[in-house]
Amino acid sequence: MPRNPTDPSEIWAQSLETLLDAAWARLVRGVRDKRAAARQVTLSTLGANGWPQARTVVLRGADKDAGQLEVHTDLRSAKVAELRADPRATLHVWDARVHLQIRAELRAEILTGAQVAARWDRVPDGSRMAYGSAPAPGQPIAQALEYTKEPNAQDFAVVQLQVLAFDLVHLGRNHRRARFEHADGWAGQWLAP
Amino acid sequence: MPRNPTDPSEIWAQSLETLLDAAWARLVRGVRDKRAAARQVTLSTLGANGWPQARTVVLRGADKDAGQLEVHTDLRSAKVAELRADPRATLHVWDARVHLQIRAELRAEILTGAQVAARWDRVPDGSRMAYGSAPAPGQPIAQALEYTKEPNAQDFAVVQLQVLAFDLVHLGRNHRRARFEHADGWAGQWLAP
Repeated sequence: MPRNPTDPSEIWAQSLETLLDAAWARLVRGVRDKRAAARQVTLSTLGANGWPQARTVVLRGADKDAGQLEVHTDLRSAKVAELRADPRATLHVWDARVHLQIRAELRAEILTGAQVAARWDRVPDGSRMAYGSAPAPGQPIAQALEYTKEPNAQDFAVVQLQVLAFDLVHLGRNHRRARFEHADGWAGQWLAP
Repeated sequence: MPRNPTDPSEIWAQSLETLLDAAWARLVRGVRDKRAAARQVTLSTLGANGWPQARTVVLRGADKDAGQLEVHTDLRSAKVAELRADPRATLHVWDARVHLQIRAELRAEILTGAQVAARWDRVPDGSRMAYGSAPAPGQPIAQALEYTKEPNAQDFAVVQLQVLAFDLVHLGRNHRRARFEHADGWAGQWLAP
């Protein structure tokens, strides 16, 4: 499909360095802009039942210098149990506006309690409803609405995600794909798309 | 966030049977309508390097009676190798219009060659470019565009996905979540969201 030749993504997709920079910029934008593609990303984990698992999460932090991403969840959710059993996770987003698929291989660490008290203080009242409910998320209930929501700081968990690798695919006028790894200082390697 | 009380999803989310029907309807729509949320879904697999892997794929088939979904890919892609090593996969889609997250646990079978000749005949010329390129998808190349695309029926693979379970989350005026399993005839079980 023909693309606008003045589309900025046609420029930044041309070099490994600017492609990687652009991916981080889209992630940072996701944290700041509720309407950005990278606001609601898909987090995949290794499920307790052996299946890969995936769910939409809100991207709450993206720090290029630290190589870290962050999401928030209920401490009792399945994803926390899965990441405690195996910290390997993958974040995926298709950013249609710039024709970019971002995939990040991550190592997760679960932060709770006093470690996240300052973050909890900044969570708006309306959003706190997402942390703390009875019974715990994923528990069987006899009727759909047989649960209560009561915000509880003890159920608030921060999932800190260290980026170990990126796989980026740009579907522009030409298709480009590259892999970047922390292990070699993010030098990058073009791949056949 | 307040929802339109005449939003049809507020009705069908109320019973297990209509919730499951709605999920299938959204998937079927994804196959038919390029702009539907379930057109471009995320397929997660167990990666060869131990990480969960996830990528955007186009949903090409959804058959409620058979309990099957279908996507097409290059036979030499990583996802085919991953699914041949372990056929467990998960499909994920967040359908914002109806506030529905669909997650499906799947068992994949890779069909090729004569098995998929009839489907290949129906793939439009423009789309055939996605199957057959040199070098194979994911292979390192020195420059971004050091590859050629030549449609090749031998590289066309159909990934047939048998649905074993659904996890559905409706974020309506009230939040509802349910799990459905093939093993018990899709009876369904409400879960705390």
